[in-house]
Amino acid sequence: MLDTVLIWIDKNRGGWLEDLKPWLRLASVSADPAHQADLTAAADWAMHYMRAAGLEPEWIPTARHPCILARTPGNRHKPDAPHILFYGHYDVQPADPLDKWITPPFEPTIRDGKIFARGASDDKGQVFCHLAALLAWKQIAGELPVRMTVLLEGEEEIGSMSLEPVITQYADELKTARALIVSDSNQLAPGVPTLTTGFRGMVYYQVEVAGAAEDLHSGVYGGAVANPANALVGMLGALHDVHGRVTIPGFYDEVVMPEASILQQWRQLPFDEAELIRRLGVSELFGEKGFSTLERRWCRPTLDINGLTSGYQGPGAKTVLPGAASAKVSMRLVPHQDPLRIAAAFETYLGSLKPAGVRLKLQRLNASPAVLTPTDSPAVAAAAEALEIGFGQKPVFTREGGTVPVVSSFKKLLDVDSVLIGFGLPDDNLHAPNEKFDLASLYGGMRTAAALYDRLGRILSNGRGG
Amino acid sequence: MLDTVLIWIDKNRGGWLEDLKPWLRLASVSADPAHQADLTAAADWAMHYMRAAGLEPEWIPTARHPCILARTPGNRHKPDAPHILFYGHYDVQPADPLDKWITPPFEPTIRDGKIFARGASDDKGQVFCHLAALLAWKQIAGELPVRMTVLLEGEEEIGSMSLEPVITQYADELKTARALIVSDSNQLAPGVPTLTTGFRGMVYYQVEVAGAAEDLHSGVYGGAVANPANALVGMLGALHDVHGRVTIPGFYDEVVMPEASILQQWRQLPFDEAELIRRLGVSELFGEKGFSTLERRWCRPTLDINGLTSGYQGPGAKTVLPGAASAKVSMRLVPHQDPLRIAAAFETYLGSLKPAGVRLKLQRLNASPAVLTPTDSPAVAAAAEALEIGFGQKPVFTREGGTVPVVSSFKKLLDVDSVLIGFGLPDDNLHAPNEKFDLASLYGGMRTAAALYDRLGRILSNGRGG
Repeated sequence: MLDTVLIWIDKNRGGWLEDLKPWLRLASVSADPAHQADLTAAADWAMHYMRAAGLEPEWIPTARHPCILARTPGNRHKPDAPHILFYGHYDVQPADPLDKWITPPFEPTIRDGKIFARGASDDKGQVFCHLAALLAWKQIAGELPVRMTVLLEGEEEIGSMSLEPVITQYADELKTARALIVSDSNQLAPGVPTLTTGFRGMVYYQVEVAGAAEDLHSGVYGGAVANPANALVGMLGALHDVHGRVTIPGFYDEVVMPEASILQQWRQLPFDEAELIRRLGVSELFGEKGFSTLERRWCRPTLDINGLTSGYQGPGAKTVLPGAASAKVSMRLVPHQDPLRIAAAFETYLGSLKPAGVRLKLQRLNASPAVLTPTDSPAVAAAAEALEIGFGQKPVFTREGGTVPVVSSFKKLLDVDSVLIGFGLPDDNLHAPNEKFDLASLYGGMRTAAALYDRLGRILSNGRGG
Repeated sequence: MLDTVLIWIDKNRGGWLEDLKPWLRLASVSADPAHQADLTAAADWAMHYMRAAGLEPEWIPTARHPCILARTPGNRHKPDAPHILFYGHYDVQPADPLDKWITPPFEPTIRDGKIFARGASDDKGQVFCHLAALLAWKQIAGELPVRMTVLLEGEEEIGSMSLEPVITQYADELKTARALIVSDSNQLAPGVPTLTTGFRGMVYYQVEVAGAAEDLHSGVYGGAVANPANALVGMLGALHDVHGRVTIPGFYDEVVMPEASILQQWRQLPFDEAELIRRLGVSELFGEKGFSTLERRWCRPTLDINGLTSGYQGPGAKTVLPGAASAKVSMRLVPHQDPLRIAAAFETYLGSLKPAGVRLKLQRLNASPAVLTPTDSPAVAAAAEALEIGFGQKPVFTREGGTVPVVSSFKKLLDVDSVLIGFGLPDDNLHAPNEKFDLASLYGGMRTAAALYDRLGRILSNGRGG
């Protein structure tokens, strides 16, 4: 039956594109209250599409943007089929700077075998692969090989604040899922199907240094009173040594490096450093001394300044001694760093670096641990087979440098393991102008999803759940 | 005759305020091209007011904002009166942050015996003292005790780039001036009339660090590629040691401290450190170890960050790895530091601190030396008498921490010495929100200016020039 489903998926390529485009036209920017109507419309589009795929969707209002929870009715899946949970999000990042887009962000455009639009890869296009596969199974087989629950949210790009309450509310039902499927990540390179087996955690701080009650004249008062901008850069500048290592005492204490066999696997991955340098527009890569680029991204913790604000930021010269200076600082954490312990070490160390005459205020905006997912579970075996069917090649096992906090939430609240099966590519321009999704990723992703539910149905059918 | 002029000035106080307000309403922010029309209007206002004072003003176009050069016609000053040059500026600093102003910056408002407005003290209010005094002399005496030339510019707050060409163009005429009068500085404290005898120089830089061509996701790329914000704070954070000393090699090599007798005088000045701490809203003062607060402001060089810009500056968390980071950095110089040598040392040292993977771009926006003015000239004697008449007390001799680069230009191009006779107060909030000028300073300044031109006419009438 899978073969027929795959043939139908392959035959219908132009039709799928036309199905996806209306979703991409909706500017579902969750950060911007002006786009409220687009978010509602995008959630509504997903409701309709899932109904067409035979699911019964429920609209779950939240404080901001709704979740959609859709289930296969009993007569739409095989008897005793395993219960599988799929998670995705229909909200997107802001599109600015608009003037850097070659075609408008919310007018999906095909160029060079790619579809360009905000959300094309993150995450509408990847979610669509699964919805289209479910639709194909319904059209061809009339029923699904698994009992399916799809949970879509509209706040992923702004911190998923409503997700945990929704998971908790439906926990009894969701707990019977044998696996959580997430497609919100990348393949290592074009033509290299990928299973992601872990990602970094994060601690994020707002750092504020205050001095005089107001901005002062830097000539009149320079030298007499502490300058918060001087103080801030002095403190933050001391957080790395010249080898790119973080100097916070105890920062690396809990870091556990992957086994040698995994590091050996990574060294054999088709990772093209020259391509990365070219794509990012840098002269060379840079980071903690003594580790490869993939190690620095996947299993070494980092500290990055995400924003700096102080004093005069306009054109030309203004001789102001700022009254305040602030920074956004995030640390990416690896197994087994404890976010709260790292947060405490950061606060203590910054406090010790604070010079006289200024006040320091630290506000923690985020704290989530790194996550490793199993590499040898039946669900991962099913995903590996599906990727080979979808893309014609055995997958590689990688990690991600980014943080997928929702996976931690599902693990914590439901004790369910994730399968991170991303179809994106490193050059998809996530969170940047000219986001795109390769049509090869789209069609391969749909084939993979169709095969995934078939294999999950077979491999998990004798287990618990149902 | 001076007595009659002073009485008329004192009688007419409300009228003077109404004269000044329209000038303060013009948002002549030279840094911002959006305020072009306000600059033109502010120059125009000065033309009209000087005409009323009997001067003949000339509009001198420049590449950006016009200069006004106004002279007393031959029948409007005493025969053989000495030629005196007055310099001031009609442009003002930007008013942001706007939300910190109690009343709007360009709606002059009287509160607690002070007039609040951007430019109230720096420099429109102080210039107005002189224009009003000239008007009073014309009204009462029909002629001035000196042959007066007033030169006003509109680019002081952005580096006075057109001033030297204008001075050069009119050098033959301006060279006959016996003294240059500038009121663009402060009194040491309320009720303490002050003659400033020196000020610091300045080198100002725009520092830009660039990394990847676009902002990146800090999770995906953190650790792999240099972060320009990390690099910037690393470099700038290394420019001071823990004792507040600047670490640029050779920075202090040329510094010459004042004679012991001058330092001794400074220790006896009525400078109230507790009042400064209270006024600035800080817990303590801070600066280079081993020097008093006045020494740190008047005769020690400093390095201050005036602005910081990078990445995400909005509310909450955004996981961006910035593509660029920039800072505004200024150094205050003291006698006999060479601005160009210091600039070169700064560039060399920052270059040596630059980590791999980023590009550093340095743009020098300013370079002017510290200046010392004579303390024993006839013009200074005239100014001391005038201050005693204007404020009822003998003046003290101080220096300023700020920079008045134009004074160096006049000295260099015309070989004329300055008399720095400032009427502002330390709490005037120059370059900050809620700039103000005490009405006592305004009225005392007008009286002083009226007396100054009388005394200069008497004391210098037998000398060269005229």
